[in-house]
Amino acid sequence: MPAQPYQPRRLWRDVTLFDGYVTLPEPMAVMVAGESIERVMPMRELDRTEAEACETMGQGGVMTPGLVDCHTHLVYGGNRAEEFEKRLEGVSYEEIARQGGGILSTVNATRAASESELFELARPRLEALIREGITTVEIKSGYGLTVDDELKMLRVARRLGEALPVRVVTTLLGAHALPPEYAGDSDGYIDLVCREMIPTAAEQGLADAVDVFCEKIAFSVAQCERVFEAAEAHGLPIKAHAEQLSNLGGSAMAARHGALSADHIEYLDEAGVAALRKAGSTAVLLPGAFHTLRETQRPPIAALREAGVPMALATDANPGSSPLFMPTLMLNFACTLFRLTPQEALVGMTAHGARALGLHDRSLGRIVEGAPADLCLWDVDTPAELAYAVQPGRLRQRIFKGGVTHG
Amino acid sequence: MPAQPYQPRRLWRDVTLFDGYVTLPEPMAVMVAGESIERVMPMRELDRTEAEACETMGQGGVMTPGLVDCHTHLVYGGNRAEEFEKRLEGVSYEEIARQGGGILSTVNATRAASESELFELARPRLEALIREGITTVEIKSGYGLTVDDELKMLRVARRLGEALPVRVVTTLLGAHALPPEYAGDSDGYIDLVCREMIPTAAEQGLADAVDVFCEKIAFSVAQCERVFEAAEAHGLPIKAHAEQLSNLGGSAMAARHGALSADHIEYLDEAGVAALRKAGSTAVLLPGAFHTLRETQRPPIAALREAGVPMALATDANPGSSPLFMPTLMLNFACTLFRLTPQEALVGMTAHGARALGLHDRSLGRIVEGAPADLCLWDVDTPAELAYAVQPGRLRQRIFKGGVTHG
Ligand SMILES: [Zn+2]
Ligand SMILES: [Zn+2]
Repeated sequence: MPAQPYQPRRLWRDVTLFDGYVTLPEPMAVMVAGESIERVMPMRELDRTEAEACETMGQGGVMTPGLVDCHTHLVYGGNRAEEFEKRLEGVSYEEIARQGGGILSTVNATRAASESELFELARPRLEALIREGITTVEIKSGYGLTVDDELKMLRVARRLGEALPVRVVTTLLGAHALPPEYAGDSDGYIDLVCREMIPTAAEQGLADAVDVFCEKIAFSVAQCERVFEAAEAHGLPIKAHAEQLSNLGGSAMAARHGALSADHIEYLDEAGVAALRKAGSTAVLLPGAFHTLRETQRPPIAALREAGVPMALATDANPGSSPLFMPTLMLNFACTLFRLTPQEALVGMTAHGARALGLHDRSLGRIVEGAPADLCLWDVDTPAELAYAVQPGRLRQRIFKGGVTHG
Repeated sequence: MPAQPYQPRRLWRDVTLFDGYVTLPEPMAVMVAGESIERVMPMRELDRTEAEACETMGQGGVMTPGLVDCHTHLVYGGNRAEEFEKRLEGVSYEEIARQGGGILSTVNATRAASESELFELARPRLEALIREGITTVEIKSGYGLTVDDELKMLRVARRLGEALPVRVVTTLLGAHALPPEYAGDSDGYIDLVCREMIPTAAEQGLADAVDVFCEKIAFSVAQCERVFEAAEAHGLPIKAHAEQLSNLGGSAMAARHGALSADHIEYLDEAGVAALRKAGSTAVLLPGAFHTLRETQRPPIAALREAGVPMALATDANPGSSPLFMPTLMLNFACTLFRLTPQEALVGMTAHGARALGLHDRSLGRIVEGAPADLCLWDVDTPAELAYAVQPGRLRQRIFKGGVTHG
């Protein structure tokens, strides 16, 4: 007797296929065996006998790779809706900070929450992403800011990946903000990140990468570089929140360290673009934060495009600057706010999203033979419609590791 | 035997209640009998025997009136995704127009489509609105621009309201754009609207109101006034697309005719605000078009607020300037882009949305005794969260005419 039940090959027929980079010019068939894509072919090449040996899972529609959200802060305690409301009622940012608002309110609530509580809070947020097509999601720590609380966040992220049908990639973002107990001693806190957080997270296998927030209101380029050196010493890839509010050169420094990505980059200059290109790093665009913060400085899209720097696109889902838990909305925002083409936006949430996570070697984010069978089948006529119209609920089927998990 | 099966009273307990104007300070109970709200009371006043005689339908969560979308163009043929894509690829607006793009492409596709085809195209758009809480929706004509095609659109709108669990209010928008066969003779087309479209639509009971597009690229104030006079002669209330791209005074003229609403109004001046106030007209804010068109001129929110002009909020769902089929996204846009408070945004999609449709006399859009039992129960902690976070799928229950139609 076989250990596994017999699993026929699964077939999707007559789909308009966006393969992660381009839309194929003719109707396609996609065949899945086990957890992988076995064959991708034009319908006219599909042999009838071969097709009849498959279970037909779907016909028509637009098929894309499962969407990749390469930058999120999904795990956190508390809620910033009240702060959102107060600011609109005219309370000043300073007054809100005095009342304990801002990122430190999230830090306090995250520290106070148990692992189970954080899990239950994050679950519906992740389910919302899943319902709109996400099959791979990165989740950062960064609201604990103690060794224990950062590790707690990373454990919650891992548990989410075990409990829900989605690939979770974790990132240690200890250098997100200065915790109040280190006020006036940011170097001391960076010591903690480098000497305790990173080694422990690495030892326990809880972090797939290390991130920093390189900004005047967070950590300096020199401090971030120390974090990267510690990450490298523990074999962890690195990335950076950089050039979001000003041009400090954090992206270029990260690129010199071979960063997977530089994220936000509204204020990135030509030298920064060149540095990313040279390093092969990905530029991660986060239009949700741009929208929420009513930023007016756009990332240097034309320069990135001309330099051939891969542009990924992510939700930045977080309680402060991007409480937007809807990946398809980011496709629209990328086009409308940043003037990406719909195709660039889709590449950004598929092939380039996977690249930003260092997963492109396994062809994640693409629909090619041998790639993981993470797929979305959408009720639209063309891939461009996914960016053009904002309309939740168009995901007809979501396929994760070869199985239909939705629809 | 009773003609109707026995229907117990239905009870929602322990809800945080936003009643259409304000959020109540303590946990509330809502009792529904038949299609109406029978009682709304603090939990502490709920008698145990009384409660036990009810069927408990839900407990906890935030309850709001069913959302009202008072301005949509949901019925149309064709698709403008390709045009969206071309513009982002650098094709000029003029070139797209030469290729038959823009509103006339929608007019051509709408004219070519049968009533059944239009119905099937509009259905998923309306279903998307319903899934995010809409229980009352206005649907305009305006892509037919012949008597037959405008009436066809209105019949489709009526059919949608019969087929789906939602109140549909129809608006004749014959004066939306100049059809190509009247090029150079806009007065001739306005004759057609006044002498044939309005009388026929009124006679057939297909239009609940009459709308115009008062703008340099559409119709003049004088032409719009002729349309309003024809509407008045047939007993139909009026409203206007006005001050969207420039300040022509269309809103003030509409207000003089007792308009239900002036819609868009980014360029409305102080005199226009005063005219709306005097007439008791509602200002309808449409941040979806503001976003899509990358408009920078905001409606005069502070002046409207100070004058006490009711502000409604709607999707403007349409294939060109607002392909955004998500009412809760508009709550976020109203706050982030127009600086409404979350409460103002919610009033705009409930009580004031109903007012913009002339339905407030029946207490539609409110949760008060005697109002229609159109309700939403949301999986959030506070009403403000609905505007703060964009997260489809938080609607736990949608109640239409007293019955749960979702969740
Ligand atoms: Zn971030
Ligand atoms: Zn409109």
